[in-house]
Amino acid sequence: MQENLSISKATVDRLPRYYRCLRQLADEDVEIASSEELGRRLAINPEQIRKDLALFGQFGKKGVGYYVAELKESIGSILGLDQHWNVAIIGMGHLGAALANYQGITRLGFRLAAIFDVNPVVIGTRVGERRVEDIAYLAEIIAERDIRIGVIAVPAAAAQDVADRLVAAGIRGIWNFAPVNLRVPSHIPFVSEDLSVGLSSLSYYLAHVSTDSHVLSDKNPLI
Amino acid sequence: MQENLSISKATVDRLPRYYRCLRQLADEDVEIASSEELGRRLAINPEQIRKDLALFGQFGKKGVGYYVAELKESIGSILGLDQHWNVAIIGMGHLGAALANYQGITRLGFRLAAIFDVNPVVIGTRVGERRVEDIAYLAEIIAERDIRIGVIAVPAAAAQDVADRLVAAGIRGIWNFAPVNLRVPSHIPFVSEDLSVGLSSLSYYLAHVSTDSHVLSDKNPLI
Repeated sequence: MQENLSISKATVDRLPRYYRCLRQLADEDVEIASSEELGRRLAINPEQIRKDLALFGQFGKKGVGYYVAELKESIGSILGLDQHWNVAIIGMGHLGAALANYQGITRLGFRLAAIFDVNPVVIGTRVGERRVEDIAYLAEIIAERDIRIGVIAVPAAAAQDVADRLVAAGIRGIWNFAPVNLRVPSHIPFVSEDLSVGLSSLSYYLAHVSTDSHVLSDKNPLI
Repeated sequence: MQENLSISKATVDRLPRYYRCLRQLADEDVEIASSEELGRRLAINPEQIRKDLALFGQFGKKGVGYYVAELKESIGSILGLDQHWNVAIIGMGHLGAALANYQGITRLGFRLAAIFDVNPVVIGTRVGERRVEDIAYLAEIIAERDIRIGVIAVPAAAAQDVADRLVAAGIRGIWNFAPVNLRVPSHIPFVSEDLSVGLSSLSYYLAHVSTDSHVLSDKNPLI
């Protein structure tokens, strides 16, 4: 695997989509796929796909295409998915429960190693194969179980406090679902999911398709 | 509001982030903000922000900045958020319940007009201010209540069927949370939320920060 430190965020954001598409192709027993085929499935310009993948090494064969299994494994490795990091979810409301049951986490190779809540009624209850643990033990459990990623699924008002506790406990990365701008030290990567972005983008297309029906006539720009 | 039909998807995706940032500035009683201030908060190049906003009209004043309240209202209108569309959620598992309780939907101006499920045990139960209704009545309720957006929160195996039923019922847009590639007619805009993208991007930065700690030294590229 060729290291490249100047990979843009846009490229990094496309890698998981390539990975997911390749996994689907593998599930369909497709052995070879062209950049045109990937581009069609992902609604990404094939030229862009070739450019992105070339940043990481030489995959596929000119005039033939990419070997699906090989490319899938390579991108998985580039994404660090072969490292099987331990993950903790903090907050066992509906969203936390949805995430704890979300098979995508384990399917991507992560291990759900702990679930925390602050509510005595919730602590001790079973969610899938785990029991909810008291957030009072956050720091020692994170250290003991070598938990690398903290998933924040608490209400907005509690999110910064949880982030601070995760950072103090030595967490390596944060996946945030609380609708707030967290302050996190710059050496700790974090991704905030903001559902309002998806819904607002959809709203934009609805607003404009209703007055200008030809805008989306050719292709759906959102797939 | 100036119409412009050649707005790129990348720009449309940034508009909700501008909107959210402006709402926060308004909440903080900030009246004027420069593109540099917006850029700092959003980790977006100020030049890009000026370029994006100029596509929609002339906002702000050179050397002064943008008038927060005015710009917020304009972007909200561009996004169609002033149209207060009715939304239905289909699927009342943990994710559906999390979405039904997600204040972002109403805060953006949408109205949760119906919640559907197929499970007799769930139908009739109360979620917030609504009762869960039988998906058998999907088509008539969508028509009766002028529901424009369908939110798919059912398991992957049921998602395409629900999408087909929404389309047949005349839905205008789909917001999909099931981890599948839906087939939707090209005239119906839809947004698929794919949580694996965020988690995989985070994984990438963890994998690369662990071997090259300087990669993220300056700034967090993911905020």
